[in-house]
Amino acid sequence: MTSQLPAEPGSPLSAIDTPALIIDLDAFEANLRRMADYVGGHEIRLRAHAKTHKSPIIARKQMALGAIGICCQKVSEAEIMVAGGVDNVLVSNEIVGSRKLDRLAALARQAEIAVCADCPSNIEALGQAAEKFGVRLTVLVEIDVGAGRCGVAPGEEALGLARAIDVHPALRFGGLQAYHGSAQHIRGSEERRHATECAVHLTRETVTLLESHGLASKIIGGGGTGSFEIETASGLYNELQAGSYIFMDADYARNHAAEGSIFESFSHALFIFTTVMSRPAENRAIVDAGLKAVSVDSGLPEVVGDKRVRFTKISDEHGVLTAETAGILPGYGEKLLVIPGHCDPTVNMHDFYVCVRGLNTAGAHVEAVWPVAARGALF
Amino acid sequence: MTSQLPAEPGSPLSAIDTPALIIDLDAFEANLRRMADYVGGHEIRLRAHAKTHKSPIIARKQMALGAIGICCQKVSEAEIMVAGGVDNVLVSNEIVGSRKLDRLAALARQAEIAVCADCPSNIEALGQAAEKFGVRLTVLVEIDVGAGRCGVAPGEEALGLARAIDVHPALRFGGLQAYHGSAQHIRGSEERRHATECAVHLTRETVTLLESHGLASKIIGGGGTGSFEIETASGLYNELQAGSYIFMDADYARNHAAEGSIFESFSHALFIFTTVMSRPAENRAIVDAGLKAVSVDSGLPEVVGDKRVRFTKISDEHGVLTAETAGILPGYGEKLLVIPGHCDPTVNMHDFYVCVRGLNTAGAHVEAVWPVAARGALF
Repeated sequence: MTSQLPAEPGSPLSAIDTPALIIDLDAFEANLRRMADYVGGHEIRLRAHAKTHKSPIIARKQMALGAIGICCQKVSEAEIMVAGGVDNVLVSNEIVGSRKLDRLAALARQAEIAVCADCPSNIEALGQAAEKFGVRLTVLVEIDVGAGRCGVAPGEEALGLARAIDVHPALRFGGLQAYHGSAQHIRGSEERRHATECAVHLTRETVTLLESHGLASKIIGGGGTGSFEIETASGLYNELQAGSYIFMDADYARNHAAEGSIFESFSHALFIFTTVMSRPAENRAIVDAGLKAVSVDSGLPEVVGDKRVRFTKISDEHGVLTAETAGILPGYGEKLLVIPGHCDPTVNMHDFYVCVRGLNTAGAHVEAVWPVAARGALF
Repeated sequence: MTSQLPAEPGSPLSAIDTPALIIDLDAFEANLRRMADYVGGHEIRLRAHAKTHKSPIIARKQMALGAIGICCQKVSEAEIMVAGGVDNVLVSNEIVGSRKLDRLAALARQAEIAVCADCPSNIEALGQAAEKFGVRLTVLVEIDVGAGRCGVAPGEEALGLARAIDVHPALRFGGLQAYHGSAQHIRGSEERRHATECAVHLTRETVTLLESHGLASKIIGGGGTGSFEIETASGLYNELQAGSYIFMDADYARNHAAEGSIFESFSHALFIFTTVMSRPAENRAIVDAGLKAVSVDSGLPEVVGDKRVRFTKISDEHGVLTAETAGILPGYGEKLLVIPGHCDPTVNMHDFYVCVRGLNTAGAHVEAVWPVAARGALF
């Protein structure tokens, strides 16, 4: 089926159909510029993560402001990014299965592609796919620096994999993937710093070990929105992989920033616009944004505006707003903005971004409608 | 972007790309037949809920087995169902906003369409849209029978709305929407029975009150997968709105069925097929199904097969499997099935159903690939 557009450029905010995924263009552009300024002032490169936005339009904006490339998590995402004009992609993930590997290797004929690996048989399979398509694939070794997800142990195990990549004629050793995913969401800034510094320490030892065996890590990548200043300060990491900084979400807003951090200068730029579809009781407003419009894995959305109005329940197609003070709930038919708990899986539920200029002004209007081009790119 | 198909008909199970949404056709067809047999043996009609499957193919199968129509929650869902050959749709929800109301009224020129309302201004707006498109819209009054979501109070308030519909020249009073959503997931069968019988009681009083004022409820609808036997036994309800019975999910499996209930004869027919993409530690297998492939609002997925293998963590693109006994985790590159916690929002993340025949046999193969045609139909 052809997807239905929630709005046309030029429409006032009030005319946007709901539930819709909204970008506050002013806040979004400011977030992009702040990160570009930060990266410009430090000895670090930005390889922004496209898993957050799934949009080649946004990826190209990031690169126009200095990002040297992007990260993807899936081959199908990378295909869509390359088709959309992005020429440098690191798949910051392991790719398994011959169909995906063939597509990855084929893509390396069109753009600069790198990928991660954490086991010998995957390296072997990557090499076979690269040979089949006549390309030389850049492969990073992923090390587990504390997240407990993918990645070999730092040190000797990583060295073994780096060697296997280095000696393979169709592969090129590209460096280390050292991303500490779970550290991003540690609330306390000192605890987050500690976890990230442990990751830096493990990465540094591994880089040194590899160097002592003649293996240079061209890319030492990691650093999400919650921690990238610490990886930058390490003087070791050379690529940041932050994604959420462009939008921010309610979960990231719960992090406490360290003093002097630029983290707090990023502002919410992603919202769900929703309509009050029922006011069945004095203290209950039902909105049309449910589980199919906003992901609740990191908690319920937060209502913009009066902090006393709370999003307290959600089901497939409905959200329930309540307030302790009667009379402050939005009325029947009113539209309001809510901040998603977690931006990435929320974006992945929508076909379009409705990009609004002057969101907080009387002249708020739709400036553009961008497809979430890689929505559902699971493979 | 054109979506990538995860498999072609004829492929063996092992060739399906992952993460994929799988229908076990044998189990699915048995579930369809069981419900059809049940409805055939009782004084009740089935109006199956299409919010679960979002597929006109499945809706037509339900109607071929006796369902008199389907339910949708969104106008855009209803449009896709009608375009796919479904001629009788109840939008079991309130529709707010002129754009949606116009589309709803226009659709009533193509198929039999009914909708719910729970406030006077919505009834007025429905009437205007119906007049604009020269149709007579059937409108049900939604009453809140315990779910605390949409719906007016049973009794006098409902009578007021039914009268407003009845006197409007472009509207037709269609009956009562009396669905107790939250009762579906009450674990204990006695507690669930109690909540549902309260709903039946409130509905009966309202039906009687309306009849005493000359307003007949042609449709008295409700009853989800967790409770439909109780609504049927009431002798009052005449339409069931169950949806999940076709697939079942891990959350519904946690319900305790009453003795003699047919609930337990429904079996899991919906799965996510996922690949082990990393085995970084003895007690950790990482699979490629994360938050963008399976909804966790009702808990993590459950692994099919060895009950000692558990899905213990999830992030955007990764799932973590662990087991107390070392050595029983699936190996690198292995593919396995998991049962989603909640089928509806999980289906809504996928572009295709991969329909497998003989799933539990050596000859398991893809028989069809069906689009999730109304995926993302949010409006």
